[in-house]
Amino acid sequence: MPVEFAPTLPTFADVAEAAGRLAGMAHRTPVVTSRTADSRTGGSLFFKCENLQRAGAFKFRGGYNAIASLDASARAAGVVAFSSGNHAQAIAYAGALLGVSTVIVMPADAPAMKVAATRGYGATVVLYDRYTEDREEIGRRIAAEQGRTMVPPFDHPAVIAGQGTAALELINEVGPLDLLLVCLGGGGLLSGSALAAAELSPGCRVIGVEPEAGDDGRRSFESGRIVTIPVPQSIADGALTTALGQMTFAIIRERVSGIVSVSDAMLVDTMRFFIERLKLVVEPTGCLAAAAALHGIVPVRGKRVGVILSGGNVDPASLARFLAS
Amino acid sequence: MPVEFAPTLPTFADVAEAAGRLAGMAHRTPVVTSRTADSRTGGSLFFKCENLQRAGAFKFRGGYNAIASLDASARAAGVVAFSSGNHAQAIAYAGALLGVSTVIVMPADAPAMKVAATRGYGATVVLYDRYTEDREEIGRRIAAEQGRTMVPPFDHPAVIAGQGTAALELINEVGPLDLLLVCLGGGGLLSGSALAAAELSPGCRVIGVEPEAGDDGRRSFESGRIVTIPVPQSIADGALTTALGQMTFAIIRERVSGIVSVSDAMLVDTMRFFIERLKLVVEPTGCLAAAAALHGIVPVRGKRVGVILSGGNVDPASLARFLAS
Repeated sequence: MPVEFAPTLPTFADVAEAAGRLAGMAHRTPVVTSRTADSRTGGSLFFKCENLQRAGAFKFRGGYNAIASLDASARAAGVVAFSSGNHAQAIAYAGALLGVSTVIVMPADAPAMKVAATRGYGATVVLYDRYTEDREEIGRRIAAEQGRTMVPPFDHPAVIAGQGTAALELINEVGPLDLLLVCLGGGGLLSGSALAAAELSPGCRVIGVEPEAGDDGRRSFESGRIVTIPVPQSIADGALTTALGQMTFAIIRERVSGIVSVSDAMLVDTMRFFIERLKLVVEPTGCLAAAAALHGIVPVRGKRVGVILSGGNVDPASLARFLAS
Repeated sequence: MPVEFAPTLPTFADVAEAAGRLAGMAHRTPVVTSRTADSRTGGSLFFKCENLQRAGAFKFRGGYNAIASLDASARAAGVVAFSSGNHAQAIAYAGALLGVSTVIVMPADAPAMKVAATRGYGATVVLYDRYTEDREEIGRRIAAEQGRTMVPPFDHPAVIAGQGTAALELINEVGPLDLLLVCLGGGGLLSGSALAAAELSPGCRVIGVEPEAGDDGRRSFESGRIVTIPVPQSIADGALTTALGQMTFAIIRERVSGIVSVSDAMLVDTMRFFIERLKLVVEPTGCLAAAAALHGIVPVRGKRVGVILSGGNVDPASLARFLAS
């Protein structure tokens, strides 16, 4: 009788194990605070600066953890990944550090800087059309033809566990939180963060924040089944996913308190805030969680609030456009 | 017989004392490194992030140290300062923290963000015309009329000693250096840094970096007397001084190995580098020292090099223009 494939959901133990694997490899990114943000919102905000992570985003955590978890023969055969950008760079960089060959399937309209950076880390890049082609199918074909292991961008236990280490570090550094705000695309960072918060700060409410144009997360959360939407149009290019994953959705349903969305205009305002006040470059996707706090989408008055700034990879030309708008 | 006024130059002991006074008040700013910068230059570069200092620049160190050194009656009467921007914010912010009233004399063409931030900290701002009026005279008149103590932007022992604490922290964190690159306007940061380096990293060569358009520092250094130039035109708006100070020049002559200059185009390229690779906003003046290393003006191959990023206060609109250029 064939054994049915029932993937086991990652737990906090996997997050803790990932933290051990990442020690000395991922940056322990700083947590910054802002008098201005606190007086504007009435809360105490703790910004976890994953924009300063290696390869410029939290994705390095999950990517490295996934590749480092492979056995010797899988490492020798290499990996393949599909990604709208930061996961691509993360896998390419982690592969380079671990001596593992990488092929990355990227959308043809991904930011030029992200494509260049991915190639710069030594990966082979295969471009596809986000609107007509299926990246998963392309990835699977390359995996089958070349014997490579596919490392998906979010729906994978080692990826989820790796992403959870950012919240683990944040809570270990600043202590228990009332609220943790996390950006939401496919749900890897949100589900991993929820695992960490449930263990390290019981009672902390975890909220996912997605772009208004791509509110499949909220609709899935509210309906209890995974809702798939057309490719959304938002400047949050790291959160243009069309659906949550099976694993990430299962964890989010169990551990997350709510999902909200913010507009592109709020993201631009938030990018400007980080540049003006904190001298930090945060990409639009990286501003999702902060925008929800700064624009009152999630009330934070009187609360200790963790906010993950997920990445900083934005083309200077795009940044110039956002600042001038 | 009248006693001749002979101001005593600050020493390393004053820098160490300032460090004690600033502990818990100034941020201990991070030191960041970059694989890309190191492979581009062949050196090991350690960037001291004073752009992440309180009020957005190293100036907070000297300003706070100067005000905190005043006696009770001088504090009660308040202070007055003249500044092209960052010193203004530093004095305003330090005054607010210490409960000391501040009046700031600022050029009418200073970046709008800097004027707004200075007012935001509670200072009274008096604007003057950089090209026709004498800010020192205006400052002295306000000091005389209102009994305020004047805190000059660089030529003052407590200011110089305070500025030196950035290099002190840098060397204490990363160990001895072969070279220390420091931006140069009036010389407060450079002379303070030189005092710290001479004590903590003997043999370290300290180099000042100024904008090409305002090379009075190099000319003074080479001629052995303070050269005064017309107000220079450069995007490095924090280094548009027309002459070194008496004290800063005396220390620079004794402790600094050389002075070089970089072009505005190099500054723009360097701003772009920090945004793209390190996700940090560094203002043009703050890029002076780094530009000298990244553009080969100072050879750094094989050397351990400290680079002070002096500030991050740049208008988003100006930043957009620089990035688009």
